[in-house]
Amino acid sequence: MKIAILGHGVVGSGTAEVFLKNKKSIEAGLGKEVALKYVLEIRDAGEFPDCAYSDCFVKDFNLILDDPEVTVVAELIGGIEPAYSFVKALLLKGKSVVTSNKELVAKKGAELLAIAREKNAAFLFEASVGGGIPIIRPLNQCLAADSINEIAGILNGTTNFILTKMFRDGMGFDEALKLAQEYGYAERDPSDDVNGIDACRKICILASIIFGKRVNPDNALVLAEGISKLNREDIAFCESKGGTAKLIARAVKRGDKVEVSVCPTFVSNDSQLAGVSDVYNAILVRGEATGDVVFYGKGAGKYPTASAVVNDIANALKNSGASSTLIWDEEEQVLSEVTFAEKFGNIRVFDNL
Amino acid sequence: MKIAILGHGVVGSGTAEVFLKNKKSIEAGLGKEVALKYVLEIRDAGEFPDCAYSDCFVKDFNLILDDPEVTVVAELIGGIEPAYSFVKALLLKGKSVVTSNKELVAKKGAELLAIAREKNAAFLFEASVGGGIPIIRPLNQCLAADSINEIAGILNGTTNFILTKMFRDGMGFDEALKLAQEYGYAERDPSDDVNGIDACRKICILASIIFGKRVNPDNALVLAEGISKLNREDIAFCESKGGTAKLIARAVKRGDKVEVSVCPTFVSNDSQLAGVSDVYNAILVRGEATGDVVFYGKGAGKYPTASAVVNDIANALKNSGASSTLIWDEEEQVLSEVTFAEKFGNIRVFDNL
Repeated sequence: MKIAILGHGVVGSGTAEVFLKNKKSIEAGLGKEVALKYVLEIRDAGEFPDCAYSDCFVKDFNLILDDPEVTVVAELIGGIEPAYSFVKALLLKGKSVVTSNKELVAKKGAELLAIAREKNAAFLFEASVGGGIPIIRPLNQCLAADSINEIAGILNGTTNFILTKMFRDGMGFDEALKLAQEYGYAERDPSDDVNGIDACRKICILASIIFGKRVNPDNALVLAEGISKLNREDIAFCESKGGTAKLIARAVKRGDKVEVSVCPTFVSNDSQLAGVSDVYNAILVRGEATGDVVFYGKGAGKYPTASAVVNDIANALKNSGASSTLIWDEEEQVLSEVTFAEKFGNIRVFDNL
Repeated sequence: MKIAILGHGVVGSGTAEVFLKNKKSIEAGLGKEVALKYVLEIRDAGEFPDCAYSDCFVKDFNLILDDPEVTVVAELIGGIEPAYSFVKALLLKGKSVVTSNKELVAKKGAELLAIAREKNAAFLFEASVGGGIPIIRPLNQCLAADSINEIAGILNGTTNFILTKMFRDGMGFDEALKLAQEYGYAERDPSDDVNGIDACRKICILASIIFGKRVNPDNALVLAEGISKLNREDIAFCESKGGTAKLIARAVKRGDKVEVSVCPTFVSNDSQLAGVSDVYNAILVRGEATGDVVFYGKGAGKYPTASAVVNDIANALKNSGASSTLIWDEEEQVLSEVTFAEKFGNIRVFDNL
């Protein structure tokens, strides 16, 4: 069994490293040998000196697509194109694909899952939400026997780092953003993070899983720009109520529709979400029988994300039909308004959160 | 497909209820009809008035064992006997078994897993640790591609409730225990909880999963009796260090051996474990690539536990070979001493916790 990696950036190189390091235990779990055969990368292998797998580097995607030995491919390029065309072509050939690409899953997941199901291939994306936190598989396999009506989380590490600096260390937004950029936590153009677009894609993926229908990120209420406007009064308001503000992405079932939002939200200090600092992420799942369950961990970063990708690779190698129970053929109706218990400045307060 | 439930106590009746409530969605996931056929119970069905499935009550275990229609059985009796004999007989007949019985799994899990593997049946026990918190399946399926060297958790709700009352509300141990008994959180004989035996069984189950060898509860260092002796000085010590005390069950790899302990432990307020109050549980998993991941939720109670049992039933119905990757044939060597960074009164301080 051979695998291929598309893209040798931070997550791609981490995936190769984690895969090679844990190859023996993956093989023990499978009862078969497995090898990395290709790394698709525009740059020359010579640009990665001391790379232990430099003979795997190729620039032609068709080498991978047409190689019958390759059964599982990790797409770690990011963005819609060429990732979408590559993934679609691979699935249509019956190869399994794993990805950390939340934009691809949020926008094209329904179509790609349908192709995977038809071809009995796996399309797995644990790493697309919450980095190293196991959340997609537990939602699918551990909480499936319960009715889940609400999910709320801190899904963007960059904004959580900024809010931590603003609340804990008294920094202003601009200063905190600059620090995040210095640490490499924020891009030079941080708009997808700061405006809530990244968190919105992730909550829509989670909502699609728990509600069993495609939730379109374009229909969500995204008020995340408020974090750049947070001021002394907002902070004082949260502290006076015994809590803090977090950028909460949330999806709630209301009858036959759902409410989906991303906005700066009051979180009481009693909540497990209040103590989630810096670049950590956490996801609260509210099950009817199970009650509140929270998953916490590193939501991004080279090795946490790579670890989730490699685990998906191992699962896809083991059982190519693993994703076939996910069906997002229908689109979920999203309410155009979100119900708040209270609003103060840039802060929303929700009931029971 | 038919299922049976052994024992109609709190978890047994909750399991029947959650199963019947979510029957349609379980059937949709399976693509087949499934029904509850038997409830094994010593008491007469007449003692459960308004029970919707009173025609399922039987007193003879052999009816279930010998019925070829029954493919999955939930053992919810608790304790070693007759649970052990029943489960072994069922697995030997090739029926899948799910259980919430931590004593059975900790003491007899290795043997029962071996029988299940041989008979291609499932032996699943998600509900045996952490109640409604998904932890066993995520460890098996989501973090398997990472090296996990440490796991530490608040695994006993009764003692966590008592410690919360002692630290937050200034109660003494006896007063807090009495309150726990009034609320139904503690048994009349609370010794298995207070002495750490319950938490020890659970950490040994988790350690067996991450290390792939049987970890014997009899070899662990259990110093949990310390919680009944906690005094003003211990509490002041924890507060002066910016934290609290929790009954932490912990397993750490040290070379080719493991350190397993249950004792009152200092937890810094920065830790996600510090905010775990009342009867909630949380488990910290420390992966080399993934970093720290924490799973939080209700560690006990009728519906959270029943929900985990029903989910295992659904998984066993779907894939009877689901447990076959777990092998505990060898016994893990447990160190007879545990390394503390510091000790004050009844409180142990560990590095990095």
